[in-house]
Amino acid sequence: MQIPTFDDVIAAHERIRPHIHRTPVLTSSYLDGLTGAKLFFKCENFQKAGAFKVRGASNAVFGLSDAKAAKGVATHSSGNHALSLSYAAGRRGIPCHVVMPETAPQAKKDAVRGYGGIITECKPSTSSREAVFAEVQAATGAEFVHPYNDPRVIAGQATCSRELLEQVDGLDAVIAPIGGGGMVSGCCLTLSTLAPGVAIYGAEPEQADDAARSLKAGHIIADDAPVTVADGLKVPLKELTWHFVSRHVADILTASEQEIVDAMRLTWARMKIVMEPSCAVPLAVILKNPNIFAGKRVGVIITGGNVDLDRLPWQR
Amino acid sequence: MQIPTFDDVIAAHERIRPHIHRTPVLTSSYLDGLTGAKLFFKCENFQKAGAFKVRGASNAVFGLSDAKAAKGVATHSSGNHALSLSYAAGRRGIPCHVVMPETAPQAKKDAVRGYGGIITECKPSTSSREAVFAEVQAATGAEFVHPYNDPRVIAGQATCSRELLEQVDGLDAVIAPIGGGGMVSGCCLTLSTLAPGVAIYGAEPEQADDAARSLKAGHIIADDAPVTVADGLKVPLKELTWHFVSRHVADILTASEQEIVDAMRLTWARMKIVMEPSCAVPLAVILKNPNIFAGKRVGVIITGGNVDLDRLPWQR
Repeated sequence: MQIPTFDDVIAAHERIRPHIHRTPVLTSSYLDGLTGAKLFFKCENFQKAGAFKVRGASNAVFGLSDAKAAKGVATHSSGNHALSLSYAAGRRGIPCHVVMPETAPQAKKDAVRGYGGIITECKPSTSSREAVFAEVQAATGAEFVHPYNDPRVIAGQATCSRELLEQVDGLDAVIAPIGGGGMVSGCCLTLSTLAPGVAIYGAEPEQADDAARSLKAGHIIADDAPVTVADGLKVPLKELTWHFVSRHVADILTASEQEIVDAMRLTWARMKIVMEPSCAVPLAVILKNPNIFAGKRVGVIITGGNVDLDRLPWQR
Repeated sequence: MQIPTFDDVIAAHERIRPHIHRTPVLTSSYLDGLTGAKLFFKCENFQKAGAFKVRGASNAVFGLSDAKAAKGVATHSSGNHALSLSYAAGRRGIPCHVVMPETAPQAKKDAVRGYGGIITECKPSTSSREAVFAEVQAATGAEFVHPYNDPRVIAGQATCSRELLEQVDGLDAVIAPIGGGGMVSGCCLTLSTLAPGVAIYGAEPEQADDAARSLKAGHIIADDAPVTVADGLKVPLKELTWHFVSRHVADILTASEQEIVDAMRLTWARMKIVMEPSCAVPLAVILKNPNIFAGKRVGVIITGGNVDLDRLPWQR
């Protein structure tokens, strides 16, 4: 297992800078009043391709040798990683192969194709996905880029908290949603190097709390197909993200589905930003845990803004 | 009729600076590609109280003498001006009286009260509104602040385009939605002084195109109760805004209801910002008029973000 270092983060940042936004940090005096904290929202929903994942994907794509790159990249995400990898590959002018279940929503397929991704459909099972993905890789020789369990991806995500530290002074804590742990691992990598006094928290849906239970148990626990409105957070930790999470995360806090939806609607209404349900989990847990966050300066990573505008969770 | 000057704008900016946000300017390579223009979105949806109106309202409130201020301020808007005036009055610690029809949506009444406004209800007719407003003013001695036909308000709104000029170099044009004409008049006041080469456009719903017809006719035309999804744009020009609009606006362009809703959804989906239907009219007319805007650097004022999240226009 290759562990990325902070030198890799610096190199990643140089490499991806032409292809990403330096996203703004927004504040809300209303939400500060409500939480008793001073919150700094790092708005990766405004990022290229609509999510922080473009940082890691771009680092992987632009770090390839020309010979490797010519064969393209491949992944089997149907979410923001697929969009981001398609975007980055398009910027480099190489193919991006995405294996997606045939049952994936048409909107997700259209979005991947909109960024130039080439979709190969599989049956909605792990065995079919793995078989089809192996075929695609064998046929193309494309480089596999995992959504989070990849040192290039984690070094890329780590550039987000590096920017946050440049944008905001005197942070006491940083909190991010945790699914597979790519963003949180990036925060661990950067903050443990540049600002080891900043406490790092993960925020997770109660109904997909495998990372919280992993941290308590001291080893990775993976759930099979958890159900939550925060659909970016259903995947489990893997060995590389566990390496960072187990060493550097102060705690992983959870929120109920209703608390997540309420925090999401509150953010849209007061901050006027479009963001995904996953991004609302940090605010939900900050509201629940004033004992931890009140009086603190807290960086909150808003991870992405790709949401179905026809079907908002408070309207269901 | 007292015409505000650019000195008034400078004084307004100093006066209101502690009470407003210097809002960010966002760009979208996707929307640039779609329009052929380079668009700079001045995001007043992130403004205090959720709209640019807080600039003019704050200028009026903080410009009052202590003796005048002690009696409070009053208005009869049920929209963003009422929120903004309530916010500004609250910051100064003086009362804000708002006359609203008893039929106004509960959410609007709650929002005004949330900012500390004191509501007096009237019947939903102009005669009742005027009678009740006269009673409130007689009883309190509060200072009337019109939503737009007021030199203090226009000088306040003019600070928005002053910031935009500081934030973006080399603009060819600025476009803003036009209802009563307060924001557009502010743009005229600032740009005719600081950047007279920048063309100023108004954007208006086809179904409430009184300002466009006024500009063609050479005198104010007012419609009675036009119907449009862009509910901030139903009010007519008045003599003070006509003064600016008739002298400095290059053209007023219109868009259909469907074009407005499509542009609104497009902005939410691609720029990840929550904004009102009114704010979508400029993008709708830019998309329709590539002959005017393609190849140009265009400032677009996103006027506000106070929208009913339970009832989005593309879902109706």
